[in-house]
Amino acid sequence: MSLAPTTLADARDRVRTLLADVQPHLDRVDDRLRVELSSQHPMIDRVLQHGVRLGGKRLRPALVLLAGEATGGVTEGHVTLATVMEMIHTATLVHDDVLDEASLRRHEDTVNARWGNETSVLLGDFLFSHAFTLASTLGDAGLCRAIGKATNTVCEGELRQTLSGGDTALSEADYFAIIEAKTAALCACCCELGARWSGAEEATVGRLSRFGMALGVAFQIADDLLDLVATEAGAGKTVGADLAKRKLTLPVIHARDSLVNGPRQSLLGLLEKGDNASRRRVVEHLESVGAFGYAQQQAERYADLAAAELEGLPPSPAVDSLRAMARFSVRRSA
Amino acid sequence: MSLAPTTLADARDRVRTLLADVQPHLDRVDDRLRVELSSQHPMIDRVLQHGVRLGGKRLRPALVLLAGEATGGVTEGHVTLATVMEMIHTATLVHDDVLDEASLRRHEDTVNARWGNETSVLLGDFLFSHAFTLASTLGDAGLCRAIGKATNTVCEGELRQTLSGGDTALSEADYFAIIEAKTAALCACCCELGARWSGAEEATVGRLSRFGMALGVAFQIADDLLDLVATEAGAGKTVGADLAKRKLTLPVIHARDSLVNGPRQSLLGLLEKGDNASRRRVVEHLESVGAFGYAQQQAERYADLAAAELEGLPPSPAVDSLRAMARFSVRRSA
Repeated sequence: MSLAPTTLADARDRVRTLLADVQPHLDRVDDRLRVELSSQHPMIDRVLQHGVRLGGKRLRPALVLLAGEATGGVTEGHVTLATVMEMIHTATLVHDDVLDEASLRRHEDTVNARWGNETSVLLGDFLFSHAFTLASTLGDAGLCRAIGKATNTVCEGELRQTLSGGDTALSEADYFAIIEAKTAALCACCCELGARWSGAEEATVGRLSRFGMALGVAFQIADDLLDLVATEAGAGKTVGADLAKRKLTLPVIHARDSLVNGPRQSLLGLLEKGDNASRRRVVEHLESVGAFGYAQQQAERYADLAAAELEGLPPSPAVDSLRAMARFSVRRSA
Repeated sequence: MSLAPTTLADARDRVRTLLADVQPHLDRVDDRLRVELSSQHPMIDRVLQHGVRLGGKRLRPALVLLAGEATGGVTEGHVTLATVMEMIHTATLVHDDVLDEASLRRHEDTVNARWGNETSVLLGDFLFSHAFTLASTLGDAGLCRAIGKATNTVCEGELRQTLSGGDTALSEADYFAIIEAKTAALCACCCELGARWSGAEEATVGRLSRFGMALGVAFQIADDLLDLVATEAGAGKTVGADLAKRKLTLPVIHARDSLVNGPRQSLLGLLEKGDNASRRRVVEHLESVGAFGYAQQQAERYADLAAAELEGLPPSPAVDSLRAMARFSVRRSA
């Protein structure tokens, strides 16, 4: 299959090349994060600064900045919005790690592994509320509303996913609805904000928003694939969490719908058990019906849809970078 | 001591009498909560509606509405702001229950007892983000900022409290700083919002904000007292959680600072153990130095400070109700 795991360092290098144009602005986002997430209380400061380092690739701020660059140029407001969106994303990561009981994220201890679940829950809440406060400093209640709504959609998607944990009958349509809500809505919002803050026309805002939505879906399918096939050393995070949580993802759903009789019963039995030890046997079932190839194909289809939305924009290096990000979203290891 | 536990029904009746003036508006807040917290997905809808019922006394919306009434009259915007603040308060309750591993709140199962911690974390996040979205519909980024900031202060207070769990050296000053942040800041914000939305002058906004801050401190001291002396049947929630979490509250801090030699070592030993079984022995130590009376006195001092802020406002039934709430905040059972 084409999703050959590379090392995390390779992936980071590739992202760096992609984002060379906006790297100075991304550095400003990092600076803003460090300043905003500091506290006069040393214990809190340590937790916040650890939180800053968990975000990793800065995909979401890059979307805000590139959408801004593609529609007129990056301003200080774009940097603020990029910081807000990274803070919200980090909040969801911190809470995800509580839910997944994960101990490793980007080769760093997760917050819950180091300080316990209580601190993780509160750190996530701190990040959410700080993000909304920072967003409101721009003085535009419409942007606050867009950010609040996207975040609320993420939460609703995560709730649907959690409440359907263990549901081995989850349909492919439900899977797509869930990942659109829990991942793609925030990517769409990043692109929308970048374009809106540049004062772009509604048609352009719509195109970039749809680009972000499609890219987010592609990205999540690839991420779910990784959880099944990656090694912890390569991915830099705990893998196999989805099966352990009995959370069905696209390759598993496709295999369940493709297999019949004995093999189907065998797969369902392994899914019911949900133990990480069954991962290799589940993977064998998935390979037997080409489920990884199917999921990879779907991810690429969404990446193509994302790229197609960019055709309506005036050509620019920023648009080239966005196109490259869509391609990269389905060929990555972490 | 004067904090005689009454039944939950008694307490609710007393609150109802206090709030008779704004009851029709509080009913509209309940209606708004039910509508806002509904979902087309039946599983999510059940969780959200359960969350609506956990709020209970509606103290925070009452503060928004009474502050509005005292400064010109309640409008639809006040009802929206009251709904927002109750949603944020409910979010913190839901997350508190995860942290406390509480199983009972207002005679209802907590969300984590019924659906597990994952759902509780996500429901809290849903409530926070929905509250911020709803706030932004009023079109005033300044209000969004005040709400975000107060919420962030609550989170910082809770983080400080959690990170100082087990610290038997916590000072009285630290205790007051923590409860101002984790409880009083939100009450202050409720009063501020009510007055601001009425277009009140800055001096009046300041008075009502300080009223809310002092009332919140009084309320939290009384709440912490209850955790030590109440029965589960009377309080309608899990009690003794503070000792179990080795969280020092005012009576304990006062006793630690008043006792010497053997009794002091005995108290510190019981606190280190932190098991709920030691609760009676801790209570004996506290009674031996009048620590409950001291805490009750401090609560009443803050209630008086709150009432004093109201002297600067034109007399009205709403101001009378606010004064009564300050009194009630230190004489309650749940």
